[in-house]
Amino acid sequence: MTVKTDIGTTTPDRITVRGKNISTEILGQFDFVDMIWWTTFARMPEQREKNMANLVLVMATDHGLTPSAISARLTYLGAPEALQGAVAAGLLGAGSVFLGSAQNVTEMLVRGAAPLTDEASDAQVRECARALVQEFRDARRPLSGVGHPIHIDGDPRIPTLAAVSRDNGYYGRHWRLMEAIAAVLREDFGRPLPLNAAGGVGAIFAEMGLDPLLARGLGLIGRSAGLVAHILEERESPTGQQIWDLVLAQDPRNALPVRQGARRA
Amino acid sequence: MTVKTDIGTTTPDRITVRGKNISTEILGQFDFVDMIWWTTFARMPEQREKNMANLVLVMATDHGLTPSAISARLTYLGAPEALQGAVAAGLLGAGSVFLGSAQNVTEMLVRGAAPLTDEASDAQVRECARALVQEFRDARRPLSGVGHPIHIDGDPRIPTLAAVSRDNGYYGRHWRLMEAIAAVLREDFGRPLPLNAAGGVGAIFAEMGLDPLLARGLGLIGRSAGLVAHILEERESPTGQQIWDLVLAQDPRNALPVRQGARRA
Amino acid sequence: MTVKTDIGTTTPDRITVRGKNISTEILGQFDFVDMIWWTTFARMPEQREKNMANLVLVMATDHGLTPSAISARLTYLGAPEALQGAVAAGLLGAGSVFLGSAQNVTEMLVRGAAPLTDEASDAQVRECARALVQEFRDARRPLSGVGHPIHIDGDPRIPTLAAVSRDNGYYGRHWRLMEAIAAVLREDFGRPLPLNAAGGVGAIFAEMGLDPLLARGLGLIGRSAGLVAHILEERESPTGQQIWDLVLAQDPRNALPVRQGARRA
Amino acid sequence: MTVKTDIGTTTPDRITVRGKNISTEILGQFDFVDMIWWTTFARMPEQREKNMANLVLVMATDHGLTPSAISARLTYLGAPEALQGAVAAGLLGAGSVFLGSAQNVTEMLVRGAAPLTDEASDAQVRECARALVQEFRDARRPLSGVGHPIHIDGDPRIPTLAAVSRDNGYYGRHWRLMEAIAAVLREDFGRPLPLNAAGGVGAIFAEMGLDPLLARGLGLIGRSAGLVAHILEERESPTGQQIWDLVLAQDPRNALPVRQGARRA
Repeated sequence: MTVKTDIGTTTPDRITVRGKNISTEILGQFDFVDMIWWTTFARMPEQREKNMANLVLVMATDHGLTPSAISARLTYLGAPEALQGAVAAGLLGAGSVFLGSAQNVTEMLVRGAAPLTDEASDAQVRECARALVQEFRDARRPLSGVGHPIHIDGDPRIPTLAAVSRDNGYYGRHWRLMEAIAAVLREDFGRPLPLNAAGGVGAIFAEMGLDPLLARGLGLIGRSAGLVAHILEERESPTGQQIWDLVLAQDPRNALPVRQGARRA
Repeated sequence: MTVKTDIGTTTPDRITVRGKNISTEILGQFDFVDMIWWTTFARMPEQREKNMANLVLVMATDHGLTPSAISARLTYLGAPEALQGAVAAGLLGAGSVFLGSAQNVTEMLVRGAAPLTDEASDAQVRECARALVQEFRDARRPLSGVGHPIHIDGDPRIPTLAAVSRDNGYYGRHWRLMEAIAAVLREDFGRPLPLNAAGGVGAIFAEMGLDPLLARGLGLIGRSAGLVAHILEERESPTGQQIWDLVLAQDPRNALPVRQGARRA
Repeated sequence: MTVKTDIGTTTPDRITVRGKNISTEILGQFDFVDMIWWTTFARMPEQREKNMANLVLVMATDHGLTPSAISARLTYLGAPEALQGAVAAGLLGAGSVFLGSAQNVTEMLVRGAAPLTDEASDAQVRECARALVQEFRDARRPLSGVGHPIHIDGDPRIPTLAAVSRDNGYYGRHWRLMEAIAAVLREDFGRPLPLNAAGGVGAIFAEMGLDPLLARGLGLIGRSAGLVAHILEERESPTGQQIWDLVLAQDPRNALPVRQGARRA
Repeated sequence: MTVKTDIGTTTPDRITVRGKNISTEILGQFDFVDMIWWTTFARMPEQREKNMANLVLVMATDHGLTPSAISARLTYLGAPEALQGAVAAGLLGAGSVFLGSAQNVTEMLVRGAAPLTDEASDAQVRECARALVQEFRDARRPLSGVGHPIHIDGDPRIPTLAAVSRDNGYYGRHWRLMEAIAAVLREDFGRPLPLNAAGGVGAIFAEMGLDPLLARGLGLIGRSAGLVAHILEERESPTGQQIWDLVLAQDPRNALPVRQGARRA
């Protein structure tokens, strides 16, 4: 019965992470992305990997009142003494539909692009895309990575994700396949569903050859930062009670609540 | 180094809970409240304890789109494959302000009623209440158990909680103290803050002589049932995306989203 | 944009659940299983449904230091002020492998038994079981509902689950199919993998014609009670620090920790 | 009824965070620490703030099989399809005792150092420390920031934290007060309880003048990265089942489990 991790060890006067002494070789010398790579892969990131990791972490951080931010704020309303619970509640929605779905896209692109090289012709990439779309339609499984309820003509972040990928040497067959999937949907199936954020992030992880699980993982790390920012704002400018009131007010069978602040002991 | 629990043991052909064989002495013979008592206290509940436990579990289950139900539904929107995540997200708001606050009330009443007997005069109970209110005001700590943003003239459940408590022999000094606190707030401090649900539940747990932590605990058990019901309804009649849209629509700087259903691949 | 629930409504003097006034028609009159049915289905359970619900809730409650109990205790070690976090952490493991897997079994049995009636011959049931086993093997998907690391000759709870099912009129084609699956694995494939708890619970939900998601849902409700009991015991007889020490001690590169209690300020 | 956030807005062709266009002004230009500052404070960090943020994030990431890593691994054992649940379970232990306790230290130091300036004499700092220790002892409240079950002669990370703080101009009255608390405990009360990690991190946040809640918040962000690394290792080299077995084996009333792998269908 062996239980051990290669991630780290602890003795009274020495803590190691992947074999390095945290006090003398890591703290003050590694930045956070270095540490993510070191802890996960036992190697330092190349500069271009750091650029991409920062890109993905920054993108996942936040962009307003997402479902995860709303859940976190409503959780904080009931348990302001436990920030960790509000952050956890916000992260729990990072599944197959939002945020976590970059994992599904990565898996799809790695599998789908297996027959291709980065030098494949546009026609070959297009053929692969067509086969993949057909497969998902036949199985009646939802295609991740395309379509968005607000950005119906294209997610404004996608051109930047693609440009940064290109600048760092990560725009190859997986990115091309992802873009071809959207083209096939639009041109062959009459479904104008441009790439969404998960599509771009999935393409990046597939290009980088990283474990698809890490696509979801970096999304969780980035989002945890956004949720902390939301809770700090919530404490100063509360929205939780108003969101609750707003939801109740949609059903005329409920009474409109009186303000809480005015009624507290 | 000993790590063991008195709750249960397992061998290939025998599972025990608190010393009873689950297969021959428990399953099919205990109902759920029996099992809660047996697992927690290693004894069966009296009938009147069962009545009160059912009362509290039923009350905690649900009453519409509470913050915990909204969090659970928004979590399910992102991760429909993980019901446990949606339920966990909903429970995480059961802290010092909502649901979990019955624990705080129980602690306050047990401590506050220590100088009283069940035969104390109304004046004595009133005096205790006044001291407690003054103590919380001096410390600028919020008093749990009174006040509600909607039920400003009294929570409609309180008379029933009190009546069932009386019928089961659990209406003594703690209930009287709780009611006296609201009277003192109204008459001496001009603050019309009637009992809320946590006030009633806290009084019940204090009367029963149960661990205050269990007041929060039974709240969690009951609410988990309500959250499961919400998710089953959410799957058939989704509200998560609409709640998200509704929240975004409150700020004119956001665009009104286009319906998701129409744009999915 | 409509956001509403049929579960309940709230006005200042009236709370309803599925149309009943909670104060005058529910509290003190419903027990917890009544309330689960009323909230979820808007109808009262039959007596035999209550018997089965209690059976399943009791079984899910607890049986010692399960992974969910250990997670809850370790979470409580770091955050004793937030019982809800410890319970949530324990529930989050109720996925496709443990506890939540009854959902997968229910889905498999409902689908697999579709061609059968309760009057089907043993040979017909056996044929269905063989097809199902073959299908999972061909797809290299793990079969839920059979096999257990400790109860290798059969889970001691299964005979009781089957007997209570029979007594309540819920032992039909789904139970027979589940038992036949284990027989086929043993006799045709040389794999002695008897039914586990998820197999029995899945058979019950399939027989009752309930939503498979509810199999996972009732598991969460029952387990929340077990986790509350664990945390109450943990507070009196802590195991969290010892479990941590025990795990660290498995790797000789770690030092044996000194007792925490002795070193606290 | 206003519900809005200053964190971000979304329209079909533009996403802003704190007023900047994420596509043209943020992505590819901000690194993750820039984004944490921008999202939380609507300003960019100074270089020395970035150095300290990286220091704290790196330190929180991981150092082996902590209670949070064990909880995450046990959660993954039951629900491998939901990485977000395993990460959330691990974060939920970041409360007042572990990881989250840096928040408590920050609050204590900000309050305790209020009468001091950075130029205060050692005797003045010592006097403040003595008053603080006495206050906690009188109130029988545990002092956070000192004492550790393993690092009984001093946490090896503290000298590095202090040195990096000094190099970046963040070693003033709060750090001095924290060190004086340990000295007072040792010399005046005979309690050799050197600074622990929370003590160092709390001193850093107090020096930086940041919201104490952010001390817990950055801890959650850093730890989420460590938990993702643990789950990636867990998938390749599972420990969850062994940890469960190990815990069960501590109680001779349990049977030693047979290996799971060998018994699966």
